[in-house]
Amino acid sequence: MTSIGSMRGEAAVSQRTTKSVYEAIVRGIQTGRWLPGGKLPSVREMGELMQVNRLTALKAYRQLAEEGLVEAKYKSGYYVHKHDSKAGVSPQEEQWDYPARSLYVNRSRLSDIHRQQVDFQMSEALIDPNLLPNAYLSNYVKQVFDLYPRVLSTYSTVLGDAELREELAGFFMAQHGISVRPDELLITTGSQQAIDLVSRALAKPGDKALIERPTYSPAIDAFQQQGITLLPVAITPEGYDLDEVERLMKAERPRLFYMNPTFQNPTGYTVPAEQRKRLVELAERYQCLLVEDDVYHDIYFGSPPPPPLFFYDTEGYVLYIRSFSKYVAPGLRISVLAARPALMDAIAPVKALSDNGTPLLNQKIFQHYFFSKRLQEHVAKLRTALELRKAVMENQLSHTGWEWASPDGGLNLWVRLPDDIPVEELLRRALSQSIAFVPGSICDPLGGMNDRIRLSYSYLNETNLAEGIRRLIAIAEEIRAEH
Amino acid sequence: MTSIGSMRGEAAVSQRTTKSVYEAIVRGIQTGRWLPGGKLPSVREMGELMQVNRLTALKAYRQLAEEGLVEAKYKSGYYVHKHDSKAGVSPQEEQWDYPARSLYVNRSRLSDIHRQQVDFQMSEALIDPNLLPNAYLSNYVKQVFDLYPRVLSTYSTVLGDAELREELAGFFMAQHGISVRPDELLITTGSQQAIDLVSRALAKPGDKALIERPTYSPAIDAFQQQGITLLPVAITPEGYDLDEVERLMKAERPRLFYMNPTFQNPTGYTVPAEQRKRLVELAERYQCLLVEDDVYHDIYFGSPPPPPLFFYDTEGYVLYIRSFSKYVAPGLRISVLAARPALMDAIAPVKALSDNGTPLLNQKIFQHYFFSKRLQEHVAKLRTALELRKAVMENQLSHTGWEWASPDGGLNLWVRLPDDIPVEELLRRALSQSIAFVPGSICDPLGGMNDRIRLSYSYLNETNLAEGIRRLIAIAEEIRAEH
Repeated sequence: MTSIGSMRGEAAVSQRTTKSVYEAIVRGIQTGRWLPGGKLPSVREMGELMQVNRLTALKAYRQLAEEGLVEAKYKSGYYVHKHDSKAGVSPQEEQWDYPARSLYVNRSRLSDIHRQQVDFQMSEALIDPNLLPNAYLSNYVKQVFDLYPRVLSTYSTVLGDAELREELAGFFMAQHGISVRPDELLITTGSQQAIDLVSRALAKPGDKALIERPTYSPAIDAFQQQGITLLPVAITPEGYDLDEVERLMKAERPRLFYMNPTFQNPTGYTVPAEQRKRLVELAERYQCLLVEDDVYHDIYFGSPPPPPLFFYDTEGYVLYIRSFSKYVAPGLRISVLAARPALMDAIAPVKALSDNGTPLLNQKIFQHYFFSKRLQEHVAKLRTALELRKAVMENQLSHTGWEWASPDGGLNLWVRLPDDIPVEELLRRALSQSIAFVPGSICDPLGGMNDRIRLSYSYLNETNLAEGIRRLIAIAEEIRAEH
Repeated sequence: MTSIGSMRGEAAVSQRTTKSVYEAIVRGIQTGRWLPGGKLPSVREMGELMQVNRLTALKAYRQLAEEGLVEAKYKSGYYVHKHDSKAGVSPQEEQWDYPARSLYVNRSRLSDIHRQQVDFQMSEALIDPNLLPNAYLSNYVKQVFDLYPRVLSTYSTVLGDAELREELAGFFMAQHGISVRPDELLITTGSQQAIDLVSRALAKPGDKALIERPTYSPAIDAFQQQGITLLPVAITPEGYDLDEVERLMKAERPRLFYMNPTFQNPTGYTVPAEQRKRLVELAERYQCLLVEDDVYHDIYFGSPPPPPLFFYDTEGYVLYIRSFSKYVAPGLRISVLAARPALMDAIAPVKALSDNGTPLLNQKIFQHYFFSKRLQEHVAKLRTALELRKAVMENQLSHTGWEWASPDGGLNLWVRLPDDIPVEELLRRALSQSIAFVPGSICDPLGGMNDRIRLSYSYLNETNLAEGIRRLIAIAEEIRAEH
């Protein structure tokens, strides 16, 4: 369990690193970050981006050029080969090659992994249904129908049920001292939808956005799908390098910064309170919106996390996404997006077009459970159960030489594997033995981080978690023995 | 009750028609159809589009030029004035002028109308909750929890619950003899979401799409929001002019044709069976997807409507949107989109990004009610009740001189008002007297049709419906008397 920031030293600049750069470029081309015929970053820039020396970056470019994926132009640099994207595509297939298709590389990769029925599910950051109050909630639902006999024959308004938004406004005041009006709250169908709405409403193709590296991978797709250029900001156990954030805001004038600063997915890191305040100041100075995705706020193991960035915001630069249903009743899919009126005016119409409002039934069930005493008891128990599962996973991993920073909350460990265990090989074999995890490259907007994996400890019970990790380690040892 | 196609004759080319052209252009500029600095259609083209003579179109352009909204360029034509969109916008406001904002004109106009609490609600095509099986359904929901105790702690897959899709595939075979596999079905949160997904997945900015004139107004916004140019196709009680459709497909190569061919919203017209077959052939010939929105299929008053276009499709050119929850439990928000694999491959990832899948609970409630005998009984009763309400509305309107073609199904009358009753004035006064309806211009992709209104007969009971229409007629008489 060491700080990850310092791990990549000179010794790591090896053939393996050339491969990382190579893969990052391929991925960037696949995801549409760099378009056919477009100019690639210079060798120097790529070296800086990937934190490798220039020679390593150059080697990767040369290899790509040899394979015909990129073209070197004399005195100009490297370009994406123009006919590459159509290679091997028949006219019939080309006809169906719709714009969105190729832009969901991360998401579809992730779906492919999640889709597999495995015994040891450590890829989805989903809470074990056994830890949720299913029976209690089912009874509650019956009360909802008694209270609102017409809940099934009524549409919600676009912003969401007025009663629920009023109660949530009260909750934000009570929990965080944040003053927010009900009409500054929008109920969304899960936080995924909130991210999608923000990307559609607040940025246009060609805009730039800062994003954590690594990050929640579907967010990468959501922003890229809008034609937004992503500029990565490294997140470490200490938070961000704020000088770098300021430099980027000043030089690149990004429209927004998508962040997950509390028990971050996938790393579990938390941006400290003093950085939060300064980030809000920077956002105001450079007119960069902060999209704060706060899905794990209540899943802390020690003391509660620092207040959301939204707490420090006075000028309306923070959009705050909070999800609750995840750890109560994920099937309900209820999240809330808080935004000041000028922004809400832009977002609400996109919500209207998307689905005309989240189903009322789900909002009413959520409301009545969420504001019950029972919920607080449940969440307290859930924290204890998850902390225990984390300890089980960490205990199993403790003698492997795998490295991670132990998180104070959330559902995941972000683990660095030793150089001699290739992640893709590990994943392939693990899946064939009914074990699933997320390869780190999916979480990297640059498509690198090929030595990291995300392990979720929230779904399996303690026995299966220990067994799953034991088996995963055995596979890794097997690979090591073979090479 | 006359055919509407023949109503606009020479006599109508009056000052009022100039105003229609004027308003259509203003609306086109507001909605982003024509961008600042962009060239407007020629006087001749505009005359053809609006079915007025050139002099009338010219008058409208001259008036707009006088007011500084458009610019005449010598020997070149008319252009949208460049600084118009920013006029009066302070730098602060401009900063917040996000791309999506101005593109939802129809939708937000409609929302403004729907938002008003009125006693005589004839603007929303929503079924009276008293006609829905609320109590029965509430009991049903309890069974769902007994059957699926973990329904609240489970996510749906992106495509939707496998069991539900299997049953729906069986339903399509049983009802229409359509063979569709469960993996060719996607469950969406209402048909609004299906339209939004299609517009995002299957067309890109600059693409063209055919759309009925008039049409379901949020569809106009959904496609325009994607930067798609809309080409209107008139719908009449006889269907479309197929020669015109073919001419447009051939000349303009539209990516898709969004249509609502059965008891169309807002007109209630139904495209006849023989046209359906030919439309599918045209779609194949010109590789134009047909997006068939079939929300009112089961709400027929005489014999069932012709089979969906989807029934005739063998080559995968039809995407079929079917909504059921509307007339069972609108609060559930369950629709289904059927598309062949090549198209589904493009749509499913957009659904994943949008919300990761429609909530499972809603799907399970819907499934268990929808496939019960009880549903068929309910729908049969509902048809009778709605037909009666339609008759009440038509009876009240029968001596007004207002004109409409009596629909064989659906929830709306599409009414032409006499020239001396300005719709906007009627709406303003109606709303102030707690009566709501939809002005026709909202349903027109060209923003014209200023003499039409849509009256929904589905929400009010017979007494209130008769009273609402009586009062509306009284307001119209009042206006006429004043002018």
